[in-house]
Amino acid sequence: MKDYITTQDFTKEQILDIINVSLLMKKHIKSGKVLNVLYHKTLGMIFEQPSTRTRVSFETAMTQLGGHAQYLAPGQIQLGKHESMKDTAIVLSRLTDIIMARVISHQTITDLAKYATVPVINGMSDFNHPTQEMGDIITIFEHMPEGKKVEDLKVVFVGDATQVCASLGMMITKMGGHFVHFGPKDFQLRGEYLDILEENCKVSGGSYLITDNEEEALKDADFIYTDVWYGLYESEMPKEERMKIFYPKYQVSMDMMKKCAPHAKFMHCLPATRGEEVTDEVMDDPVISICFDEAENRLTAMRGLLVYFLGKTEEVIEKCNE
Amino acid sequence: MKDYITTQDFTKEQILDIINVSLLMKKHIKSGKVLNVLYHKTLGMIFEQPSTRTRVSFETAMTQLGGHAQYLAPGQIQLGKHESMKDTAIVLSRLTDIIMARVISHQTITDLAKYATVPVINGMSDFNHPTQEMGDIITIFEHMPEGKKVEDLKVVFVGDATQVCASLGMMITKMGGHFVHFGPKDFQLRGEYLDILEENCKVSGGSYLITDNEEEALKDADFIYTDVWYGLYESEMPKEERMKIFYPKYQVSMDMMKKCAPHAKFMHCLPATRGEEVTDEVMDDPVISICFDEAENRLTAMRGLLVYFLGKTEEVIEKCNE
Amino acid sequence: MKDYITTQDFTKEQILDIINVSLLMKKHIKSGKVLNVLYHKTLGMIFEQPSTRTRVSFETAMTQLGGHAQYLAPGQIQLGKHESMKDTAIVLSRLTDIIMARVISHQTITDLAKYATVPVINGMSDFNHPTQEMGDIITIFEHMPEGKKVEDLKVVFVGDATQVCASLGMMITKMGGHFVHFGPKDFQLRGEYLDILEENCKVSGGSYLITDNEEEALKDADFIYTDVWYGLYESEMPKEERMKIFYPKYQVSMDMMKKCAPHAKFMHCLPATRGEEVTDEVMDDPVISICFDEAENRLTAMRGLLVYFLGKTEEVIEKCNE
Repeated sequence: MKDYITTQDFTKEQILDIINVSLLMKKHIKSGKVLNVLYHKTLGMIFEQPSTRTRVSFETAMTQLGGHAQYLAPGQIQLGKHESMKDTAIVLSRLTDIIMARVISHQTITDLAKYATVPVINGMSDFNHPTQEMGDIITIFEHMPEGKKVEDLKVVFVGDATQVCASLGMMITKMGGHFVHFGPKDFQLRGEYLDILEENCKVSGGSYLITDNEEEALKDADFIYTDVWYGLYESEMPKEERMKIFYPKYQVSMDMMKKCAPHAKFMHCLPATRGEEVTDEVMDDPVISICFDEAENRLTAMRGLLVYFLGKTEEVIEKCNE
Repeated sequence: MKDYITTQDFTKEQILDIINVSLLMKKHIKSGKVLNVLYHKTLGMIFEQPSTRTRVSFETAMTQLGGHAQYLAPGQIQLGKHESMKDTAIVLSRLTDIIMARVISHQTITDLAKYATVPVINGMSDFNHPTQEMGDIITIFEHMPEGKKVEDLKVVFVGDATQVCASLGMMITKMGGHFVHFGPKDFQLRGEYLDILEENCKVSGGSYLITDNEEEALKDADFIYTDVWYGLYESEMPKEERMKIFYPKYQVSMDMMKKCAPHAKFMHCLPATRGEEVTDEVMDDPVISICFDEAENRLTAMRGLLVYFLGKTEEVIEKCNE
Repeated sequence: MKDYITTQDFTKEQILDIINVSLLMKKHIKSGKVLNVLYHKTLGMIFEQPSTRTRVSFETAMTQLGGHAQYLAPGQIQLGKHESMKDTAIVLSRLTDIIMARVISHQTITDLAKYATVPVINGMSDFNHPTQEMGDIITIFEHMPEGKKVEDLKVVFVGDATQVCASLGMMITKMGGHFVHFGPKDFQLRGEYLDILEENCKVSGGSYLITDNEEEALKDADFIYTDVWYGLYESEMPKEERMKIFYPKYQVSMDMMKKCAPHAKFMHCLPATRGEEVTDEVMDDPVISICFDEAENRLTAMRGLLVYFLGKTEEVIEKCNE
């Protein structure tokens, strides 16, 4: 595998390997040890939209591993303007060691990967958000309920069928867990996404459910996950409209958390619109909310992915076990 | 002390320590020696306004110490938009080792510091400019008139009561020196700033004077300091208006310099509007003008502050004395 | 020589030295070896226009050599606004080790070099593009036709008299080769440029020809080079207008390549507007097109120039020959 466009290209075993190496590095670096496995390597970061978490995570990851990430901001590089995507991809492959791109249209990232000769990582498209989902599964492993395995988990996404919702569904079903999308009828996962979940469950023994039935959705849930209601920056839904659709039924509140398993945790990809999809009380609860651990694990996942796609996994395992 | 929001939080002794460690590092690095005390550490730099000196100084400082500074430009990170300040602060604390921010409103930097769990450095707000003032006091120590101590100095700020004027006043009175703001009545330091100067003088034995009397202001002055007349970028005063208020009385010219002590030096935080607050003759005088040494000492001070707030002062002293 | 404003300031021997050290480093770094000759040095990169190749090449070069490049994007630093060019140059000289600038007007780069006390590299102006031409001559040396020396080459630029056209002409005549600009009468090199070519040929024994005669231009050509027809971003010519002027006579097609020497190669500084100045067939031909090698050699040249202007050539030769 040259590129990371969607988690679908990985097997469950490969994902377990990446989780493992990511957690090894997290421990190593947190203990203050140096890990120069990407010494003087360059990551080219293309952003068609601004982003805080994805950009900062990748840039910090490269620094910690001895390399450097170049931030190519919106407007600073013209994908498909003044230069064909193909030419940009070939040129960047000559000048950098690996590329990541946050793109508006999924077609852009697949084109980039097609023409680039170095690895390309999808930093979010309108189809999915695979680096988020890698950070999420790492967070879930760190907060695994006592006595449970990933195959036993019920992970519930509440609210709008965003790319993050889709990505979570792909990851959970791929790993053999039970995924639920609890959202209003017109804002539920559908089409191609359901085919993927279906296919994953067949292989993994997992299951999925798309529903607007609260009780069915929340009963015994181990993790509750939500995302903003406003959609992509490009086509933001007005506040009044989104409140009418999602509020109060799909707001993650303490009341909602009480309807889940007693140990249930709250997750959010962030940024959050406090008071809309989640209450302050839930988000700030030191036991229930793990959304900031999750944000930190963006970095954990980025390190794992960079090392994996630059062929340094073996070297990392060796160095971390020294 | 976790954060550097204002120099007021330091004692005089702590400032002397920072000056000392900053000058040690300056000598060490200028001699071509390596000082990897912040190896692979990340500084997150948030800018709500563009800046040359502050940004370049911080970025160079991190590189020289073995780390990396991430430049989060205006519009690239949304403080308080699409995400609460609190959440941004917590997330950046998970992904970086230390944060600096140049903000429009002082409230932003205090909020950031309140919620961040890593150190936060104020890279200028509408209230003050503490990293400037640390570079300035270092420059003053480097150019100390023969036979004088900081407690003997008369340091005069000429012109508009900018944040730099306020910051200089805080620093000089904190260190026990004599501070003068020589400016037109409606553009003099007042209110809260005077309370701070008052309080500092009580502790340090220093003094301060706010005046539009030229003779009183300039007599025996050791350092003459000025700043632009146009105010903050956000609310620039038209040229005609500012000339009417400040020109020619408050322009630093050779004539003005002659009214000070014979060894008096000229300082400016830059950028300067040559021909307004200072003449070319003064600014380019190789003996009188120390404003470019001052600019270089932004870097000197940044290194000192980064090392101080990341707890590496002892290690630096040891390595520089090897 | 402190600065690299135009290749004219170099002798042929100096250029041969830079080619040599650049190719040494290329081999060294491609073999995975470390070359920390610019350890913790800072390059300040000023861009008045966005740029992909120049920016990414410089930034990657600094990382590979152990240093760091600061990207000062359009609008993030104000050259001659709010601060005189002189002051910006002096200040940046205090805070960085070397400066590069892509400027709109050539006057800006000469002013910057005049006032800066550190080396200044011209990353393209409206007059010339010297780092491009250094990468180009390296590419030409790598693809030297069997049995030929640089003095034997016929290098033809096809199309509009852009800065790249002028720069190629200066480099080829400087090295003693034969340069042709094949372009429509109103879009041919003229004035000061011709004086430079003339002067170069006198010293080097090279020759130059400005013509719109296809046969004369293409016969026995070793290299065909082109650039976009739309001019600088600031004053783009509408597509219809430029097609009327240049198409089809000046489009590099397989037909045109067949009129050159059998071993002739195709070069382009990129970005290319496929279907205008060059056909897909030529650009994608794995034997004829060397434009992506050329893009990679931007990086090769940047490393050579950085090392040269920071006085590390000897050290590099020693380390690469170890």
